[in-house]
Amino acid sequence: MPKLKGTDKIYDVIIIGAGPAGLAAAIYAGRKKLSTLVVSIDVGGQGNLTTHIENYPGVMPQSGMQLMDVFHTQAQMFGAEFMFGKVSEIKPKGKEFEVIVAGEESYLGKTIIIAFGKVPRKLGIPGEDKFFGRGVSTCATCDGPLFKNKTVAVVGGGNAALEAVLDLSKFAKKVYLIHRRDEFRGDEVTVEKVKNAPKVELILNSILVEIKGEKFVSATVVENIKDKSRRELEIDGMFLEIGYIVDSSVVKSLVDINEFNEVVVDKKGATSCPGLFAAGDVTDTPFKQAIIAAGDGARAALSAYTYLTCGGMVGKKIAPDWHCPSKKEEK
Amino acid sequence: MPKLKGTDKIYDVIIIGAGPAGLAAAIYAGRKKLSTLVVSIDVGGQGNLTTHIENYPGVMPQSGMQLMDVFHTQAQMFGAEFMFGKVSEIKPKGKEFEVIVAGEESYLGKTIIIAFGKVPRKLGIPGEDKFFGRGVSTCATCDGPLFKNKTVAVVGGGNAALEAVLDLSKFAKKVYLIHRRDEFRGDEVTVEKVKNAPKVELILNSILVEIKGEKFVSATVVENIKDKSRRELEIDGMFLEIGYIVDSSVVKSLVDINEFNEVVVDKKGATSCPGLFAAGDVTDTPFKQAIIAAGDGARAALSAYTYLTCGGMVGKKIAPDWHCPSKKEEK
Repeated sequence: MPKLKGTDKIYDVIIIGAGPAGLAAAIYAGRKKLSTLVVSIDVGGQGNLTTHIENYPGVMPQSGMQLMDVFHTQAQMFGAEFMFGKVSEIKPKGKEFEVIVAGEESYLGKTIIIAFGKVPRKLGIPGEDKFFGRGVSTCATCDGPLFKNKTVAVVGGGNAALEAVLDLSKFAKKVYLIHRRDEFRGDEVTVEKVKNAPKVELILNSILVEIKGEKFVSATVVENIKDKSRRELEIDGMFLEIGYIVDSSVVKSLVDINEFNEVVVDKKGATSCPGLFAAGDVTDTPFKQAIIAAGDGARAALSAYTYLTCGGMVGKKIAPDWHCPSKKEEK
Repeated sequence: MPKLKGTDKIYDVIIIGAGPAGLAAAIYAGRKKLSTLVVSIDVGGQGNLTTHIENYPGVMPQSGMQLMDVFHTQAQMFGAEFMFGKVSEIKPKGKEFEVIVAGEESYLGKTIIIAFGKVPRKLGIPGEDKFFGRGVSTCATCDGPLFKNKTVAVVGGGNAALEAVLDLSKFAKKVYLIHRRDEFRGDEVTVEKVKNAPKVELILNSILVEIKGEKFVSATVVENIKDKSRRELEIDGMFLEIGYIVDSSVVKSLVDINEFNEVVVDKKGATSCPGLFAAGDVTDTPFKQAIIAAGDGARAALSAYTYLTCGGMVGKKIAPDWHCPSKKEEK
């Protein structure tokens, strides 16, 4: 096996993911003067996807991107380093953890905070992967403006799909909404808005069979699930809005996961593996909200700090009360 | 017993406390259209005490009061009602909980969120209670400006006391710092600043014996713990900076508390009593931070919402997975 690129530096903490949980963890780790590396495929994560966030306590309504930009600025202000790429493997290596990025680069951390959230669910049909980023998107908020005066399709039946349709109809000349049922799971108000939108055509009881194109998406084939008839739609863009799933495959051999593939944490953000912490949507907290992810990210960073300063080592059991025994009276 | 004042309205949730945890809970409860009453002695709680908060993710550095003002605005925006007063009792009443305020008013809630944080520790000496708010204060940030060109004393030896001294020396003409040891527990940098501040006089190895005055504080008696000599200092104000404690006495017969009097919660913010939730510094989370309190407040509100919508009733056991069984597949 060829030597991997990377650095010899051993970080106090490597945070994987840069959404609300990962960035809050980076802010707190940085302020505790821990040497901190954030590895992520993006900055902002799902925090970017909300056009108008009004329930983040302490911040008057603004876009999710604006909010995440402040998180990012703060994390940099306190000294966190950023590295972009997809983590392909995490494994113990001596007393540290090794984080391998895209199979090519290696980074060592004394502790790890898993905060890579959820990923959009996929359909698993021909053309979906081939055209991802070339007309196929999972983020109408991010990519909608690229489809001005074009024809797009949205697949899904929940609020996310309905809101994507309304959002896209501001730019596109036509928006197909493809849904496998004849009813929507979204809020009644939003459903009505979509039904009354002039540029929108509903294609119900239908599933996607294929996405076609040369270099970019040019068409999609839909099949009516009742009469099995097929129809080809000429489109320039395809937005998948069929929900999110947790992909915890890179850590599932290290930590306990639940039936939804979520990483099981205790109330201090510790996983079943000492030195490995987790926060945000990747965990088994039932409530997926930016403020909860941010609070849990801060908590995971402080837990990692406590783990490091109490002399915790990989494989060594942490005291059940989580305090350094000699410091207990200071609590 | 005379009939208590109050209202016949049964609230979906009564939140006790209006710091970061209580206000975040109010924002989330309000957005879920739960009828929400916040009962508190103030708005902002410990969130107000930080002059310069720079580690709240998503908000660039500003004062704690500015931050808490936004929390308050959002909570009102989503319909939470506010009632000022000190809760003297919480008890089950039929299927609801009764919250008694100042022994005089009664409010009913289907669920309760305990979020009243910590309270400043007291010395337990003569004059302390009598002159509280009349020269005796536990908040230099709040009350410092009232002592322009006056003489004040601070008691304590940690960072809070040292920072209060520096803060007060901007206004007062003289600041005594009274500490029972001859060393400080605060950061070295802050200790040096205090030692070099021209208006500051250190009175070490000394304890407070009494606070004197007519209507307002006029003097304090200090005793040297080594030679037992006493000295009377003429002062206009006395700031107690000897830490915070949890006073969970109003709920200790209802919920499990730990050795620090903190309310024990599970990772969804539920206490040992169904229908009773808790968040923030009053709980046994080891990390007392605004962002963590806010995240936990939001989580407690969503747990209360789930409890209500799943048909949970006081005294009825909640399903261990916390989801309405029929809705589990929607997760």
